[in-house]
Amino acid sequence: MTTKTSTRCRITKSDLKVPFVEVSLSNGERLELYDTEGPQGCDVQTGLPKRRKEWIAEREARGDQCFTQLHYARKNIITPEMRFVAIRENVDPEFVRTEIASGRAIIPANKRHLELEPMIIGRKFLCKVNANIGNSAVHSSIDDEVEKMRWSVRWGADTLMDLSTGERIKETREWIIRNCPVPVGTVPIYEALERVNGRPEKLDIELFLDVLAEQAEQGVDYFTIHSGVRLPYIPMTAKRTTGIVSRGGSIMAKWCLSHHKENFLYTEFDRICDLLRKYDVSFSLGDGLRPGCLADANDEAQFAELETLGELTHHAWERDCQVMIEGPGHVPLHKIDENMEKQLRICQEAPFYTLGPLVIDISPGYDHIASAIGAAVIGSQGCAMLCYVTPKEHLGLPNKEDVKQGLMAYKIAAHAANVAKGHPGAQDRDDALSRARFEFRWEDQFNLALAPQTARDYHDQTLPAQAAKTAHFCSMCGPRFCSMAITQQIRDMVDDKASPSTLAQDLRDKSEEFRAAGGSIYVEPKPR
Amino acid sequence: MTTKTSTRCRITKSDLKVPFVEVSLSNGERLELYDTEGPQGCDVQTGLPKRRKEWIAEREARGDQCFTQLHYARKNIITPEMRFVAIRENVDPEFVRTEIASGRAIIPANKRHLELEPMIIGRKFLCKVNANIGNSAVHSSIDDEVEKMRWSVRWGADTLMDLSTGERIKETREWIIRNCPVPVGTVPIYEALERVNGRPEKLDIELFLDVLAEQAEQGVDYFTIHSGVRLPYIPMTAKRTTGIVSRGGSIMAKWCLSHHKENFLYTEFDRICDLLRKYDVSFSLGDGLRPGCLADANDEAQFAELETLGELTHHAWERDCQVMIEGPGHVPLHKIDENMEKQLRICQEAPFYTLGPLVIDISPGYDHIASAIGAAVIGSQGCAMLCYVTPKEHLGLPNKEDVKQGLMAYKIAAHAANVAKGHPGAQDRDDALSRARFEFRWEDQFNLALAPQTARDYHDQTLPAQAAKTAHFCSMCGPRFCSMAITQQIRDMVDDKASPSTLAQDLRDKSEEFRAAGGSIYVEPKPR
Repeated sequence: MTTKTSTRCRITKSDLKVPFVEVSLSNGERLELYDTEGPQGCDVQTGLPKRRKEWIAEREARGDQCFTQLHYARKNIITPEMRFVAIRENVDPEFVRTEIASGRAIIPANKRHLELEPMIIGRKFLCKVNANIGNSAVHSSIDDEVEKMRWSVRWGADTLMDLSTGERIKETREWIIRNCPVPVGTVPIYEALERVNGRPEKLDIELFLDVLAEQAEQGVDYFTIHSGVRLPYIPMTAKRTTGIVSRGGSIMAKWCLSHHKENFLYTEFDRICDLLRKYDVSFSLGDGLRPGCLADANDEAQFAELETLGELTHHAWERDCQVMIEGPGHVPLHKIDENMEKQLRICQEAPFYTLGPLVIDISPGYDHIASAIGAAVIGSQGCAMLCYVTPKEHLGLPNKEDVKQGLMAYKIAAHAANVAKGHPGAQDRDDALSRARFEFRWEDQFNLALAPQTARDYHDQTLPAQAAKTAHFCSMCGPRFCSMAITQQIRDMVDDKASPSTLAQDLRDKSEEFRAAGGSIYVEPKPR
Repeated sequence: MTTKTSTRCRITKSDLKVPFVEVSLSNGERLELYDTEGPQGCDVQTGLPKRRKEWIAEREARGDQCFTQLHYARKNIITPEMRFVAIRENVDPEFVRTEIASGRAIIPANKRHLELEPMIIGRKFLCKVNANIGNSAVHSSIDDEVEKMRWSVRWGADTLMDLSTGERIKETREWIIRNCPVPVGTVPIYEALERVNGRPEKLDIELFLDVLAEQAEQGVDYFTIHSGVRLPYIPMTAKRTTGIVSRGGSIMAKWCLSHHKENFLYTEFDRICDLLRKYDVSFSLGDGLRPGCLADANDEAQFAELETLGELTHHAWERDCQVMIEGPGHVPLHKIDENMEKQLRICQEAPFYTLGPLVIDISPGYDHIASAIGAAVIGSQGCAMLCYVTPKEHLGLPNKEDVKQGLMAYKIAAHAANVAKGHPGAQDRDDALSRARFEFRWEDQFNLALAPQTARDYHDQTLPAQAAKTAHFCSMCGPRFCSMAITQQIRDMVDDKASPSTLAQDLRDKSEEFRAAGGSIYVEPKPR
C-alpha cells in the first residue's frame, strides 16, 4: 500500500472556471469543496479578472432592456450564471433555471459586477452566509476594507454587505467591488442619509434613486430597501421593549413621522423596480421593524411589515426583479418556526435571509454563538441565507479575529442546516472526516476541517511532535488506551455477511484468539 | 430621579443560606440570579464549610440504611436538600419532592459530600450544564485541578465530572470534593482500569465494587456506569464509521470480547445499586455505544443500549436509587427529536444528560459551537443536563480559556432551552438586559450578561472612555444616528390608551411638533 500525501488545493472546473478546493486524502479519497475565496494573487489596483465581461457584452449588444436572471429564466434561457451555479452546487442547470423562474431562488449578479463568481440563494440550494463589513464613524482605510473583504471570503462568506457610513464611501465601495468574487450588498439609505447631512426628513425618492443609480452602476449586487416600514405600523412599535432597532427602519420611521406621509420607498416602489431591473440588482427587502429582543419577537409590527414585504415581492416579480426577504433578529427557539412558516407563505417562497436570530439576549461577547443556534435552526427549516453576527455584536466594531469567529459560527450553522435538510452530498465531508478520525489520519482531518490551521494549531498545543500526527492515539486518551482501536478489532472479528448465530460463534472464537494474542488493543504505529 | 449604581454581589437566602447573585440596576430594578460559584475565600487545605453535616448526622443517628433522596421523597419526606433546591429554583418544595419521587428529577448528593450546595436535575427545572475536568496522561497537579474546578463553577458549571486517569487520582479527587460546591461525578471504571494496569480483561465486579466504595466514601455524587454495553450489542458496532467512541464503553466491550461473557456491570447491577443507595450516589447510566459521528447517529447499537438503560432504570428505582441517563454525542439536527422522544418513553422520563450533541463533524477547533447548537435544541425538548464540549474537543486537552469558552457556549444553550421551554422567569434576565440596552444603561447590561467583564472589555476596545458608558449611543451607529432613540420618540407620541384614530391624529400632531423642534433625535447625554 502506497501512502499518499494529504493535500488541499484550488482547482477550477469546466470552461466556466468554477472554483473548488480539492482535498486529496492520504487514503486516495478525493473531495471537492465549495470555494468562496475567489482568484488569488490579483493586484488590488487591477482588481479581479472580469470573467463576466463577454456574457454581459452579448446581452448589451443584442439590446436587452431587462437584465435580470429572473427575466431570462422565465424566457427559458439558461444563462452562463445559471450554468456556473449548477456546477458549483452539483445540480442540473435546468433545475437552477426553474427555481429562479419561480422566484424561489435568486442569483444576485449586477451586470456591472463583472468580477463576480455567481452564486445562488434559495432553500433548495446550499444554505449561504453573509458577512458585514464597512467602516464606521471611527476608523477605516480603503486598504483595511479590501483586506476585511478578502479575509471574509477566505473564511467562507458567500456574500458581503458593505455597511460603510463614513467618508469616501463611494471610493471604498469601488475598490471592494472590483476585488470581490462574491455578491456585494448595500443599504443605500445610509449613503442617501449622508447626502442630506444625517437629516432623514430631508430624504426623498429622487435623491434615493440617484444613490441607487450610482451604486448600481458601480456593480452592487443587492440592495436592502426598507419599503415595508409603513406609516400605520410605526405606532405598533411604541410598546415594544426595544422599539425599532434597524437603522434603515428607524430612518424611514423618522421620515414618515416628520412628514406624516407613507414611506416613499413603498409608494414609489415601482420606480425602484424599474431601476433595479436594468442592472439586475436584487431586492433584499429589509425588515425595518424586526424585533431587537426576545420580548418583541413575532409581534404585530414585525408580522405587519412581513405582509407588506409579501405584497412587494409580488410587485417586484411582476417587474422581473429578483427578491429575497430579510428576517429577524432576536427570536427564542420556540418561536422560530412561526417566522419561517409565515415567511414562506406570505412571500410565496421567496428566499428568506435572517440575521441570526439570537435565541437569548444575555450573551453580549458571545452573541455569535447565541445567534448561530437560531441560525442553524431556521436554516434547517429552509432559511436560504444567514447574516452572521460577531462576538462584538451590541458592544463594538468587529476586528479580524471577530470576523473569523463570526464566520466560523455561521459556517457551522449553515452546514448543520444543509445536513438536516438532507441536501445531497452535504454529509460527505463529515463522513470523510469521521473516517479519517477513526483511522487517526490527522492531516486528513485538518484538511477537511472548516479551519485547517486552527485545528492543526490546537492539536499541536498538546502534542507538538510531528510524530504525534501519525500516532494511533490522541491526547485525550493517550497511547495507553484508545476507544477507537477496539472497534477495529471488533470489525476484524465480525464478518459482514455472517448470520446472528455465526456472529455469536465468531465472537466466541475471536474471544479465544484475542486472549491468546495477549489481549492488547494498542498497536504501535509504524513509521510512514 | 436619583441615579443608583449598578452592582452585582453575592447574597444568600433563608436559614439554608441558598446562594444567589444579586444584580441591582441603576433604575432601581433588582434581579436574583442562580449562583454556582459556592462560598468564596476558603482555604484549599480546610475546604468549604460542611453545610450538610447536621442534616446527614440526623439521618445516621436514626439509623437510616437507605440515604437516597428518592427514598425520602417516596416516604413523603421533604429533605433540607429539597428545600434548598426549591428556593434555588423558586418552586414549591412539594413540587420538588413529587418530581424526585416519580424519578423525573434527581438531586445528586452523596451523604459524604457535606460541602455540597444541593442542585436538581430534571426537565421541569432549569436546564443544567456539566463541565469535565481531570488530569490526563500528560500533565497536572492537585493545585491545577482545584483551580480548574473553581474556574468551572465560576463560569456556571452546575456539576463537574472528574475524569482523571493519571497518578494520585484519589488524592486529587479528595481535594476537589472538599472544595467543590457542586455535585462531582466520576467514571469509576477509569480508576478500576488503573488498578489492573490498563488491562480491561482483568477487571471484575469485586474490584469494581471496591473502587465504587472508596469513591462513594470520598463523596462522589454520581457515577457513570456503562451497564448497558451488553455482549449482543457489540457486533452491531462493527459496521459503524467510528465504532465505539466511549472510553468506558470500549473498556467494557473489550472485557466482554475477552471473556465472551455478558457485561458484569449488567449482570451484577443489583449489587451496584445496593452500594449506591447507602451513600445516595446517583446513577448516570453511561451510553457506552453512543455514536461518534453523524453517520452512526440513531443506529441499532445506540438504541439497543438505550432499551437496556430503560430496563436498568426500572431496577434502580426499585432499589430506591436515583438515576439519570447519558445520551449522545454526534447527532444531526433532524435526528435529535427521536433521541429525546425515545429516551423519555424508554426510560420512563428519567432525566436525560447528553454530550452536546454535535450537529456536524467538520468543525474541529469550534466543536463547542457545533455542539451547543445540538445542546440548545435537545435542551428545549426536555434534556435535563448538557455536558459541555470545549474548542479542543477531538484535538487536545482544554486549558482554562477553553473551559471558559465551552461553559459560555453551554450556558447559552441551557438558557436558550429554558426560555424555549417557557420556564417561569427564565426570560426575565433577557428582558431586563434588553431594557437596559434600549436605555443605554451600559453597566446594567454588563452586570446582567453571562460574562460581565468580557462584555465590558469588548465595549472598551472600541470606546474606551468612561464617558462612553453613559453615552446614549453605541459604537455601531455612532453618536450621529441611533435607531433606539427614535423609538423613544415614537413612544412619547403614542398614548397607551389611545384609539387607533386618536393615534393617527396624534401622529399628525406629533409630526408637526417634531419638525418644529428641529427634528433631532439625538439628545446629548447628561453627565451623571
